[in-house]
Amino acid sequence: MKLNATKIPIKVGNKYIAILNEKRAHFLDFHEGDRAILKIKNKPALRVIVDITKNSELTENSIGLYEDTWEKLGVKYGDDINVSIAEKPISTIYIKEKLNGIKLSKEKINKIIEDVVSDNLSDIEISYFVAGCYVHGLDDQETVDLTKAIVENGSQLKFKNRIVADKHCIGGVPGNRTTMIIIPIVSATGIAMPKTSSRAITSPSGTADTMETLANVVVEAPKLKKIIEKVGGFMTWGGGVDLAAADDKMIQVRNPLSLDPQGMLLASIMAKKFSVSANRVLIDIPIGPQVKINSKKEGIVLKKRFLKLGKALGMRVKVIFTNGDEPIGHGIGPNLEAMDVMKVLRNEPDSPKELREKSLEMAGMLLEMCDKALPFRGKAMATKILNSGKAYEQMMRIIDAQGRKKNTLRPGKFSKAIKSLKTGKVTSINNALVSHVARTAGAPKDPTAGMYLHKKIGDKVLKGEPLYTIYADSEERLSYTSEYPLQKVYTIQ
Amino acid sequence: MKLNATKIPIKVGNKYIAILNEKRAHFLDFHEGDRAILKIKNKPALRVIVDITKNSELTENSIGLYEDTWEKLGVKYGDDINVSIAEKPISTIYIKEKLNGIKLSKEKINKIIEDVVSDNLSDIEISYFVAGCYVHGLDDQETVDLTKAIVENGSQLKFKNRIVADKHCIGGVPGNRTTMIIIPIVSATGIAMPKTSSRAITSPSGTADTMETLANVVVEAPKLKKIIEKVGGFMTWGGGVDLAAADDKMIQVRNPLSLDPQGMLLASIMAKKFSVSANRVLIDIPIGPQVKINSKKEGIVLKKRFLKLGKALGMRVKVIFTNGDEPIGHGIGPNLEAMDVMKVLRNEPDSPKELREKSLEMAGMLLEMCDKALPFRGKAMATKILNSGKAYEQMMRIIDAQGRKKNTLRPGKFSKAIKSLKTGKVTSINNALVSHVARTAGAPKDPTAGMYLHKKIGDKVLKGEPLYTIYADSEERLSYTSEYPLQKVYTIQ
Repeated sequence: MKLNATKIPIKVGNKYIAILNEKRAHFLDFHEGDRAILKIKNKPALRVIVDITKNSELTENSIGLYEDTWEKLGVKYGDDINVSIAEKPISTIYIKEKLNGIKLSKEKINKIIEDVVSDNLSDIEISYFVAGCYVHGLDDQETVDLTKAIVENGSQLKFKNRIVADKHCIGGVPGNRTTMIIIPIVSATGIAMPKTSSRAITSPSGTADTMETLANVVVEAPKLKKIIEKVGGFMTWGGGVDLAAADDKMIQVRNPLSLDPQGMLLASIMAKKFSVSANRVLIDIPIGPQVKINSKKEGIVLKKRFLKLGKALGMRVKVIFTNGDEPIGHGIGPNLEAMDVMKVLRNEPDSPKELREKSLEMAGMLLEMCDKALPFRGKAMATKILNSGKAYEQMMRIIDAQGRKKNTLRPGKFSKAIKSLKTGKVTSINNALVSHVARTAGAPKDPTAGMYLHKKIGDKVLKGEPLYTIYADSEERLSYTSEYPLQKVYTIQ
Repeated sequence: MKLNATKIPIKVGNKYIAILNEKRAHFLDFHEGDRAILKIKNKPALRVIVDITKNSELTENSIGLYEDTWEKLGVKYGDDINVSIAEKPISTIYIKEKLNGIKLSKEKINKIIEDVVSDNLSDIEISYFVAGCYVHGLDDQETVDLTKAIVENGSQLKFKNRIVADKHCIGGVPGNRTTMIIIPIVSATGIAMPKTSSRAITSPSGTADTMETLANVVVEAPKLKKIIEKVGGFMTWGGGVDLAAADDKMIQVRNPLSLDPQGMLLASIMAKKFSVSANRVLIDIPIGPQVKINSKKEGIVLKKRFLKLGKALGMRVKVIFTNGDEPIGHGIGPNLEAMDVMKVLRNEPDSPKELREKSLEMAGMLLEMCDKALPFRGKAMATKILNSGKAYEQMMRIIDAQGRKKNTLRPGKFSKAIKSLKTGKVTSINNALVSHVARTAGAPKDPTAGMYLHKKIGDKVLKGEPLYTIYADSEERLSYTSEYPLQKVYTIQ
């Protein structure tokens, strides 16, 4: 059946969709979500998902195409498009098997991921895959197969015969910007550190958001490879490049219900490392009441799976448990966190101690894992590199390679200090509340917004002394934060 | 934040969606699938789902609205729209509970269904609800609660102090058009029979498709009520009216993987009966190798659940098992099936015996259930009504009340008879293949397309005698059917 192409001036992202009038759909026996093959003479065919509209403006003899589909097909105005029914992809059968609790073979997992990447599966179908993995879990073999499938169906950065190191933190701790200190230290020794990070979803800032205050973080794969060859390290946004593209799509359908099937979480993290050819990976699992992993017991289960998965992928993996009780640095929010990082890199006297210490510990471990330092000597080596200014210099090289930002790092113009109502000792800081307040002040979209924590757990505090200061770039945003119980961010005893 | 409204000339059906430019979305902290509240001065606010586009034609200061959303909000060109973030509906938490295997309370199920109907849940979220019900099942109480929630969140046809009967067949048997004979017989006695049916999804014709060859089947609720008051019965398309609207939306997300969680199937069927106030319901479960229910054991499990659910809803329910081994009538496809039906109603000598017998049995049972006939005397009464021509007259009244179609019932112009290659006896007919061939010939979209089965199971056949004839309205469509192993439709031994 030939239909007249009608352009709909909207890009829907990487999904190809054709819209049919209800009557035409009924006549052609199409149901919402079915696939069709579209074909224009002398051009390659395209598989699309069918949307059905009751709109009278789209006639029975027309087919509506969003801009992406229009361009991909190479339509010219007036073109007739041949429309035919496409079979459902076989991967829908495998997804149903997973929902039924059947273990999936490598081939089936690969087919599912291939269809996720090539938009052969709709969001609804991908949701069912996530649901199956969530309810029935993924065993070790399935997790390895999923990881490999994600890597193989996306771009990869390949480095031959080179030690490539990476690190990852199972999020949840605000102000945990160790990455921006570890990468300069380790890559200053010649070890490749191609680091992609995420933006904040529910936190006040992701590493990519904080790094973005200093440098461009949206860099495409070929340039990334050149940066590694030139300066040995980068810190960019993972979503800006199609490494592990399938994972990004699955995360989109996981978000609405915050579904984190453990096997998918593992595959998601390790696929990103594997796709940049990392062979030395350090995993940081903060444990605390308000982070993802709440007990050491849970942490140990996860650690074992990381080690197994790393072994199957041919990586040397080390997993450490760290303190997830309180934010790591003093600054919360993109600019404030970047200021903390720069203080540490510049060896300034008031640089945040825990951030410096945790970064040196982890950089030291990576130096040992990469055989740059002898056992137990890594931290000393990392400290030497940091103190010598070489880490700072390396950071400058990385920033220049990615593209330096010209803005000055400063906190928001409007601020409000929250003072202690009594004299005592800080016994806890509520991470979740810290995130809410900083986001309400405008972080991460406003990089100047956030908080500065004057006191940390164990610090003594006098009545009337400021506990923390909230920053925002408008009085209105600052006033919004009063909705929260601001005194409850800290517990003083 | 105020944005300028841009109309997108597409109706997406009953979903309210707003499209934001990627940069604006990032700035406003919106992610794909988030909800927003849109508000124009002096008009009621509207909750929408956010889509994010990379399209440069939609500027940062604009918000794209599909036609439905534009109209619902009452936008005028040039209007500024206030956009704010809406919280995720609490029902997403209940859906996650169901995925975690937790039994849901009546209140939680009701909230989910309320949000399904009011488009507060996205397709992805509804998919997770379906997945949870599919994997963990719905127990009897949850099934009752789901049924009631579907009914209460949709339109209802209410009849006071009246016996209202309905029947349902758990599909899968082609040519099973008993409904169109039972309704005229039973409603001729004054019993109300408000019957809504579905269109074909994977079969050659649904009852609504077959009825549509004779009468209009898209009738709105107020008119349906009047038809019952006037003639006592109707046979319309369930999708044409918003009885059990939530169910229609859930079916849409169940279709891609053909997920039929038993509790949802039960709730779906019984909600449709309950929403037309049926208090006597006859359920027909065909059992056979190629229909939904393959064994009596499976059938008994389902029967028990139907009876329990009926009791909880205050209905008198009877469940029967029938032969699902072969098609019921001779005709397959809308016109050919309607021709079978009219032959039975007109008491023509060559009317299909099984169709007549099965319809009389079931009509008889309904007459007994409704206390019109004494026990064991229902079939005799039904036969008398049919033989007297009263059922035919009642059918004419129903057709006129719904709106008579003027077309003549005829099979397709082009036909091909498939002849037996040997002499023997018909031992089986492949229902699935019958469906494929009839659909390939063009059914149900082309009402003249389909098949006529000259032989049924147990019939003797001579070599060279026609087994069945395929009908299509174009030679091309007829030729398509050769893709199938046409000799394998029948097994002769």
